[in-house]
Amino acid sequence: MLKLFAPCSLLLGWLMLPVVAGASPGNGADLIVYGDYLLTMDPGQPELRDAAVVVREGVIVDVGPRERIDRTWVARDSIAGEGRVLMPGLVNGHTHTAMTLFRGMVDDLDLMTWLNHYVFPMEGRFVDPDFVRTGTELACWEMIRGGTTTFVDMYFYPDEIASVVERCGLRAVIGSPHIDFPSPGFTGWEDSFAAAADFVRRWQGRHPRITPAFAPHAPYTVSAEHLQATVEKATELGAVVTMHLAEAPAETEFIAAEYDTSPVRHVAGLGMFRLPLIAAHMVQLDAADITLTAGAGVGAIHNPTSNMKLGAGISPVPAMLAAGVNVGLGTDGAASNNDLDLWEEVRMAALLHKVASGDPTAMPAGQALAMATRLGAAAIHLGDVVGQLKTGMQADMIQLDVTRTHHLPLYDVISHLVYVLDSQDVQTTIVAGQVLMRDRQVLTLDETALRAAVSRASDRIRKALREQQENEA
Amino acid sequence: MLKLFAPCSLLLGWLMLPVVAGASPGNGADLIVYGDYLLTMDPGQPELRDAAVVVREGVIVDVGPRERIDRTWVARDSIAGEGRVLMPGLVNGHTHTAMTLFRGMVDDLDLMTWLNHYVFPMEGRFVDPDFVRTGTELACWEMIRGGTTTFVDMYFYPDEIASVVERCGLRAVIGSPHIDFPSPGFTGWEDSFAAAADFVRRWQGRHPRITPAFAPHAPYTVSAEHLQATVEKATELGAVVTMHLAEAPAETEFIAAEYDTSPVRHVAGLGMFRLPLIAAHMVQLDAADITLTAGAGVGAIHNPTSNMKLGAGISPVPAMLAAGVNVGLGTDGAASNNDLDLWEEVRMAALLHKVASGDPTAMPAGQALAMATRLGAAAIHLGDVVGQLKTGMQADMIQLDVTRTHHLPLYDVISHLVYVLDSQDVQTTIVAGQVLMRDRQVLTLDETALRAAVSRASDRIRKALREQQENEA
Repeated sequence: MLKLFAPCSLLLGWLMLPVVAGASPGNGADLIVYGDYLLTMDPGQPELRDAAVVVREGVIVDVGPRERIDRTWVARDSIAGEGRVLMPGLVNGHTHTAMTLFRGMVDDLDLMTWLNHYVFPMEGRFVDPDFVRTGTELACWEMIRGGTTTFVDMYFYPDEIASVVERCGLRAVIGSPHIDFPSPGFTGWEDSFAAAADFVRRWQGRHPRITPAFAPHAPYTVSAEHLQATVEKATELGAVVTMHLAEAPAETEFIAAEYDTSPVRHVAGLGMFRLPLIAAHMVQLDAADITLTAGAGVGAIHNPTSNMKLGAGISPVPAMLAAGVNVGLGTDGAASNNDLDLWEEVRMAALLHKVASGDPTAMPAGQALAMATRLGAAAIHLGDVVGQLKTGMQADMIQLDVTRTHHLPLYDVISHLVYVLDSQDVQTTIVAGQVLMRDRQVLTLDETALRAAVSRASDRIRKALREQQENEA
Repeated sequence: MLKLFAPCSLLLGWLMLPVVAGASPGNGADLIVYGDYLLTMDPGQPELRDAAVVVREGVIVDVGPRERIDRTWVARDSIAGEGRVLMPGLVNGHTHTAMTLFRGMVDDLDLMTWLNHYVFPMEGRFVDPDFVRTGTELACWEMIRGGTTTFVDMYFYPDEIASVVERCGLRAVIGSPHIDFPSPGFTGWEDSFAAAADFVRRWQGRHPRITPAFAPHAPYTVSAEHLQATVEKATELGAVVTMHLAEAPAETEFIAAEYDTSPVRHVAGLGMFRLPLIAAHMVQLDAADITLTAGAGVGAIHNPTSNMKLGAGISPVPAMLAAGVNVGLGTDGAASNNDLDLWEEVRMAALLHKVASGDPTAMPAGQALAMATRLGAAAIHLGDVVGQLKTGMQADMIQLDVTRTHHLPLYDVISHLVYVLDSQDVQTTIVAGQVLMRDRQVLTLDETALRAAVSRASDRIRKALREQQENEA
């Protein structure tokens, strides 16, 4: 049993050993994971009872009833499924991982005070490669513990993020940010855009779990000309693009004043909607925006907690889903959430759209869960790779304990996952067949070293906060 | 160490033994509970670091810095506070505990289908004293594990509820329901009202942790005449009253059609607002209703998850607080939530009123936490008894672990409690000085027996659901 910390490379090597003697090549596998309940999240596949998923070389090679799987396959390792739900790992479609180091630093301020008085000055002062490495590790630890297996990141020093992702075993789309203002490491647009193109070029096709992306910040911080440059370069490199879009009323007003249109029509008009685009937030939309988004196959990432906490508004998610938009869920950064718990976003999405419409049948539990898995994977343009448990797809999956007393009684597994489950009920996290957490023990990161690094970084931030408060007093 | 199950009576006896030899009577105590962070929730008292609370005979006799407490007091028992927040236990102002047995039975239906097709028929078929005993025990288990120490209940067979409360050690206001329609055990108003009066008479002043109450269901299910009868009887007996009030648009329309006024003005006009009233929901309010509520000292219980899930609307909580209304929080029953996790209500309240107003400064974290403690206690008319850690008040308190990785880094304890904490971070639950949970082990209920009883009850419900589905197919 792999209960102790083991470096990634050892684990990978171990998983790649030949199958046990006696098993014929045809039925040899690396790993079988069982579940009393198996949710494939394939819309055509009902919930299975007492079933299993078979993994070989990181890929799902069989899904079915336990009895048949046990007759057919011999595996080097297996994980029991008594009292557990087995399902695809969750997809966090929008976050800024390193900002976990700012978790709870300041809350409940108006947006401009929060950004200009705290977030931007603290970023300017503290964000460097060390900060990003530590913050990303802390975020990845939390995501592994909460059952998130894929995330879309947008933060400075993306090479540091990629290096943590390589080590910890998660899957990620990593956007290299570019913006028309000075930002950590850059003087403005020119150098941040050049660095993004360089990052995409170096990481494109380099690692099976990492997708590099362009990340122009937002239509109100990147000029039309610079967004067009992004379109050209991303098209040339065949790259994914992620950006903030139509988040808050101030953006809508700014774009209306500058360009006399909506944020969505503005960026679509610049060619952004011809790219594989991951658009975060998508709150301020009219009917024409929704039609345009659906037709272009743009993925929309709904961040209910962040939108609520910052008072941004309520995204028209049911209308987007009805129009055929692939809508995923995101936590946004921990500075505006304040955690990376995607289960809370699932629940929040299910509840928020009921109260917004006054209709308790809006956003049923199964639809909220689909946004965190199948639809979320499609929204980040990885719908053929992850988000469902199907033969040929990557073996990204999680096991959940549904036997704790807060799950009693159990009539409907999906209801419990959406309305009852805590992230601490996640028992197992697997990406590309590698077990990242087993019985809640994270196997690919060193908790002691991580805690020490977080403590060093946060001591400096705490001191700066105190100084700022003293200067103001 | 009291880590194993022990009957309540044994524990109480043990706590009441004389103080240890060597301690003078003046400094002898039963229990000292420490906390690296101590939140008294007294608005005049800042957060304390490295502090403790001293308990004698169920009452708080000292609160202060650890050093002074250790110099002053000798106690029979103590609970360490490293890495822990010590604060008042939470107050759940509105629930229907036994409905935990219907948790997740059916979701996401329109209100009338949900009630008339599932909830009412299932209640009619299954609710008996056994059902209520089992469902209440399950609910109390969950509340003890989640750090709720006081709850306001409204469900059938209140004597069964009281008996579970006596055994498990929680504190409760128990409303005996009366309604103008047949309900479990009753043919209609006459017998359900007579039983309520009898329940209040028998339990008034009988047990220090139990407050009996009248529970007329709602203004749309109890006639004006019968509400007046409740006012008379409750006044005569000096009893608390709890009811559903101004929950959903259908109620507002019904009251407008029948009585040409708002639900709040309707019941206030009948004299209900002269009573110590606990009004659950309070969603459909106008400015006059809020002024009336504040002036009368009526407690309002906000149930954000239930209101969202049932699409009832958004309660004007910030306006109520500004007007001086004591607003508490409630989970409502597990059939419409689907758990009894008050931490989720705290977070939901903090987030919902920001998005409803478009103002991220609305409902700051500290105010949301106050609704779950000090304000919630005041709303249920126990503000002099619980909800703050102060000398002379009942020793109802909890310890929370804030050292887990999802709490890193820690800049502000209150921010983490509101935006990050999971109910599984609660370590210790104490009511009237009795330790109900220690290191997450519940000491006053028998988990094995509870699981067996829940299994028996839910098997019958599951079978009935299946039959209903087959009949419909």
